[in-house]
Order: sequence, then C-alpha cells, then structure tokens
Amino acid sequence: MKIGIADTMFARANMGKIAIDAIWKESKKQGYPVEMERYTVPGIKDLAVASKKLFDEKKCDIVVALGFVGEAEVDERCAMEAGIGLIIAELLSGKHILKVFVHSCESKNGRELGKILKDRVEKHSVNALDLLFAPQSLVEKAGTGQRQGAENAKPLSLE
Amino acid sequence: MKIGIADTMFARANMGKIAIDAIWKESKKQGYPVEMERYTVPGIKDLAVASKKLFDEKKCDIVVALGFVGEAEVDERCAMEAGIGLIIAELLSGKHILKVFVHSCESKNGRELGKILKDRVEKHSVNALDLLFAPQSLVEKAGTGQRQGAENAKPLSLE
Amino acid sequence: MKIGIADTMFARANMGKIAIDAIWKESKKQGYPVEMERYTVPGIKDLAVASKKLFDEKKCDIVVALGFVGEAEVDERCAMEAGIGLIIAELLSGKHILKVFVHSCESKNGRELGKILKDRVEKHSVNALDLLFAPQSLVEKAGTGQRQGAENAKPLSLE
Amino acid sequence: MKIGIADTMFARANMGKIAIDAIWKESKKQGYPVEMERYTVPGIKDLAVASKKLFDEKKCDIVVALGFVGEAEVDERCAMEAGIGLIIAELLSGKHILKVFVHSCESKNGRELGKILKDRVEKHSVNALDLLFAPQSLVEKAGTGQRQGAENAKPLSLE
Amino acid sequence: MKIGIADTMFARANMGKIAIDAIWKESKKQGYPVEMERYTVPGIKDLAVASKKLFDEKKCDIVVALGFVGEAEVDERCAMEAGIGLIIAELLSGKHILKVFVHSCESKNGRELGKILKDRVEKHSVNALDLLFAPQSLVEKAGTGQRQGAENAKPLSLE
Repeated sequence: MKIGIADTMFARANMGKIAIDAIWKESKKQGYPVEMERYTVPGIKDLAVASKKLFDEKKCDIVVALGFVGEAEVDERCAMEAGIGLIIAELLSGKHILKVFVHSCESKNGRELGKILKDRVEKHSVNALDLLFAPQSLVEKAGTGQRQGAENAKPLSLE
Repeated sequence: MKIGIADTMFARANMGKIAIDAIWKESKKQGYPVEMERYTVPGIKDLAVASKKLFDEKKCDIVVALGFVGEAEVDERCAMEAGIGLIIAELLSGKHILKVFVHSCESKNGRELGKILKDRVEKHSVNALDLLFAPQSLVEKAGTGQRQGAENAKPLSLE
Repeated sequence: MKIGIADTMFARANMGKIAIDAIWKESKKQGYPVEMERYTVPGIKDLAVASKKLFDEKKCDIVVALGFVGEAEVDERCAMEAGIGLIIAELLSGKHILKVFVHSCESKNGRELGKILKDRVEKHSVNALDLLFAPQSLVEKAGTGQRQGAENAKPLSLE
Repeated sequence: MKIGIADTMFARANMGKIAIDAIWKESKKQGYPVEMERYTVPGIKDLAVASKKLFDEKKCDIVVALGFVGEAEVDERCAMEAGIGLIIAELLSGKHILKVFVHSCESKNGRELGKILKDRVEKHSVNALDLLFAPQSLVEKAGTGQRQGAENAKPLSLE
Repeated sequence: MKIGIADTMFARANMGKIAIDAIWKESKKQGYPVEMERYTVPGIKDLAVASKKLFDEKKCDIVVALGFVGEAEVDERCAMEAGIGLIIAELLSGKHILKVFVHSCESKNGRELGKILKDRVEKHSVNALDLLFAPQSLVEKAGTGQRQGAENAKPLSLE
C-alpha cells in the first residue's frame, strides 16, 4: 500500500515530516507494509490537484493532505475552497484523502498551536493507516467523540 | 436491497448503531428484505467519499450518512463543504444519500442534543427504507412539515 | 413532454400538489400535451438527486423542484448547498430545473408566507411549460422585472 | 461565429436587447461576421444550464450571460450559486461565458443603477467579440484596471 | 515545458508582464527550457476557463493564473467563486494552476499594495518553475512559513 503525503511551504511547521514519522512508527509497530510518496506544494489550495496527481501518477492508495490556514479572513475562505476541492478530488478518484487542516485561529499561542498541529497530524496519520489496514478499528471507535488536536469530546446522554 | 451506513468517530454518540437498530426494527416490521454495510470514517468531511465507496465497492442502493458538527465556526463551514460533497456524490451515482447532520449549536444541553440526535437518526433511517420500498408513502406526507429531531412544523394557511 | 415534480415532506404546504394543479390547468388551457411524474423526498438537499433520477429514470424533459427553507441559519446554508447541487444536476443533464425555493425568513406571518409560496409555485409551474412549449414568450418578458411570490419590480430608467 | 445571449425575465431592464444592439453595432464597425441566438430564462440561477444549452444545442462559440441580482441577502447568495454554476458550465464546454451581473446593492438610485447596467452590458458585449476575434486587444489592456459599469481604476505604483 | 500565463484587464497592474519577466529571468538563470503562452481575460472569474483552454488548446504544462480582487464585498465573493473554479479546472486537467490573487483589502495604500502584488507574482512565478523542474526544492522548504507578498512566517514551536 502506498500513502501519499501532500504538504505545503506555507505551513509554519514541517507537517509532512511529522506525518511521515508517525506513519513509519505506526506501520512498523503494526507490521503494515507501506510505501510513501511526498509532494510539497505552495499552499492549501494546491493540495487538491496534488492529491489527484498522487493518485493518478504515483498510484497512491490514500493521501494525507496537510494544510495550514493563515490568520486573515481570506485565509479561512481559501480553506473552504480547498476543502471543497479535496472532497471533489476524493469523489473523482474514489479514494480517501485525510484532510488535516490546522487553523491559525485555533490558538493565539504559538506553542499551543504547535501542539494542536502535532497531535492532529499524528492522529490523522494513524487514521490513514487504519482506513487502509484496519477499517474495523474505526467502527469500534464510532461515535466516541474522537478529536485530533484536542481532547476527545464527552459522549452525549441518549436517555 | 443494501443500505450503506456511513458514520464518524468524531460524533458524540454511536449514530451508526442507532441507524442500524432503527433499520432492522422497521424492516422487520414491514417485511423489507435488507442487508446493511457499515463504514466508519474520522469526520464529517470524509462521508462523501465513504458514500461513493459504499455505492461503487459495496453495491449499496442507498446510503445513510451520519454527521456530527462541532461547536466552532470552522465546524459549521466543514458541514457545508461536506453537504456539497454529499450532493455531488449523489449526482455522480444517481442514488440517494440521507444526509443526517446534527449540529452542536442546536442545543447547549447535552441531554437535549442527544434526544435530537436519536430522533433524527431514527426518522431518517425510516426515510431511507421508505425511499427504497415505499416511495408513495413520502408523497402522502408531502408538505406536512415533517421534522427529524423536532416536532413537525404547522401547515401554512393557503387561503 | 414529461414534467417532473420534486417536492419535500419538510415543506409546510403541499407544494407538489399546487404545481401539479397549476400545470394541468395551464396545459389544458394552452392545449399542451403533458405528462407528469411526482417524486417526494425528505428535504431540500435531496432535490438535486431526485431531479437527476427524474431525468434519467423517468425520462422527464424538465423538473420543477420545490423546496421550503426553515428559519435557522443552518437551513439557509442548506438552501445554498441545495441550490449549487441543482445547478450541477442541470449541467449534467442539459435540462432545466425550475428551482422554486420559499424561505421562512420571507415573512413572519404564516398567511403571508403561504401566499408567497402559492404564487411562486404557480408562476414557476407556468414558466416550466413556457420553457418547453413557448420559449419565445419568455423573450417577450425579458427584463420586465418578473417576480414569483411578489409584485413585479419596476423597470429601471436607462436614460 | 455564433454568440449566445442568455438573459432573464427577472431583470429590471432588457439586458438581452442591450447586448444584442451592442454586438451588432461593434461587429458591423469591425467587420466581424457574427450570428446571435437569444435565450431568456426566469432568473439568474437558470443562466448556467441556459448557457450549456446554447453551446450544445445551438452551437454557440461564446455566451454573454446577463444576470440581475435582487436586494435581499438571499438574492446575493443566489448570485454566488449562479456564478459557480456558470464557471462549471465554462469548464465543461471549454468556452467562455461572459458573466455580466448587475447587483441591486450597487446603487439605491434607479437611474444610476440603470447607467451601471447599460455600461456593463455594452462593454462586456464588446469583450465577447474581442475574445473571439481580437484576443490580442485584451492583452494590450491587461492590468489597466478596466471596469464595466464604472470608471476604470487607477494603476498601482510598482516602484 | 510550456507555461500558460492567464491574467486580467481588471487588474490594476500588468501582472502578466511581471510573471513573464520573472519566469524568463529565473529560467535563464537555472537553464530551464521554457516556452510561454499568455492569455488575457476580462476578470478573475474568467481565469478558470482561460486556464482550461491553455491546457487543452495550447498544451500548457502548468498555468500561472493572476487575479486582482476589488474592494467590494461582491468582489471578495467573486474571488471565492473563481478560486473554486480554478481548483476544479486543476482536477479536470490533472495539472497545477498557481492561483495568484491580490486582494484590494490587503492594503489601503496603493504603493504598498503594488509591492505586495509584485512580490507575490514574482515568487509564484518561481514556484511554477520549481513545480515543473525542481519539485524537490519545494520539499526542502516545506513547513517553513513561505509567504508571497509578505515576509515569511515564523516557525511554530513543537516542543
């Protein structure tokens, strides 16, 4: 199985490297046979076609798309355009793209934002492996308020 | 007939299980011959391609897509991207996806939000069965202000 | 010619029936040979694929898609997603879908909202017939501020 | 070369006629051999499929799509849906659609709004001819702040 | 390799020329064999189909799409429609479009806005070359907060 890693020069941390490290670590631990292909583009709006190219030209089976969203309102709108583009890219290829976006507005504190980013990238890297090799493990965690970049949410009472 | 159930780890309740239970119960009661296929993904933005895969790879005839929307403004925008993606997935496959979204902003009270969620998932599960086996029953309820997760709305006066 | 009527259970009035009555009345008056096919779905976001199915499976030549938009901000956003979906459905089929949306925010008075709804559905039903049988009649009304659900707008001065 | 003119009954001025007059006048002046095909639809959201039909059924080489946007917030959102639809229609056909939108919010004064409308429609009609017959003339005006419906903008200092 | 340059008459600076000059300079310096094809359109919403035509009719391998966004809220929404359209154009062609947008709201000072514009166009012109000829150089700058039209952002602490 081949995992594409699409990241950006715009991001304020090496999201691609964090993902690659997390995937090697987890795939080694689980004994999953994986290859990786990394593709870096300028910014978040370039991730959709980068993912398409990773599927079509590099024969990836899944892509982890790593985007960092700036502080301005324009940046948030770019994230929305990028998000729609990534979903269309998934529909055109019939394959998953883990859409890992970190928004500058999530924390004004750089250290905290860094923590959020690292946690989210690592957890979604494992999610990519699980989608490929252990989809049942996602079913087991269905509805459990899983969060990436934050503590998990509490379950709702259904009584 | 095969019904796909797409749900998420992000949700704060096991929406997939609620849907499956509701579909078994109703299909048994009505004597509808159904099979189900469940697919759990990380979050709401993954539901479009999950539905596509349920149609293409698992040969589902309809999908119930269960999404839970977080509290932040970013989450609401993700719901919009996901909604557009699900509609495009429907158009590409020519099949219905019941788009069952529960928004955290619908109630600050967890117990109430849980009630909304359960009612909406159960009613849309029955809607999925009706679309497949008894489309005429929807025509009979046309324009009657049917709500899922709330009381039905009052009819408008047309005099 | 076959006209598809797509409406919803969510709506607070039987929009499908109003459309069907208006189309029978007008087509009888004009001597247009029409057939109709009705399809009721849960809500506004289901209208795009319903229209697609009316074109592909029921061989309709045009669709009147009748949506009712709730009061919440979420409902308005759903209307936007539905609107984009309907336009994509038109582009994929190369056929018109009359997009007849009534928004709860148009009037707080139920009786007035009912009036708006009835007028809009009836006028767009006639528009559907005109697009099929008398496109020139639309050209004759071009730029005349035609409104559905309200009085026509005044022409602008071009001096 | 065949130019499609798509306009609406909703508009508060006969935008189609203004475009046709402008195109005849300019094409006569320049000696361009053009044919025109007019298609009037109810409102702005119908322009995308109208343009698609002008390309596919009427073999137009370019379309001038003339939309008028009402005053309500809902109208502005419809303009956005229409805009996305028109761009998708262009991508599906590989041909230009001049997207000529006049927004009611551009002026509260009807006479002024009429002026804006006339100027914008006329200038974009000429743009359509230039795209077909004299693309180099657009290159010559690149970056010169060309406005339709307003005075041209001033160039930025690049020192 | 052939680079398409799509720009607009709307822009308040000759963005196409800046891009062409930057690409000649850099490709000469690096010894990259490039050809260019320029295509000027009226405004930002025309860039998606212009890029599509540059790929399909002019056989370009990549496109630099240069858009200038006006001051009004309507202009910002047009930028969003254009952005979505450009991403869809990329997905349909499987090739990169550098989406270089300058927003009037980025500075009220014309001289400053001009500086932003020049820097952004030049840097993205080099990015286009790097994507074609030296993709590894983007990987080396991954996550380094690269900005076009502004100073680079500071790295986040990941401790």
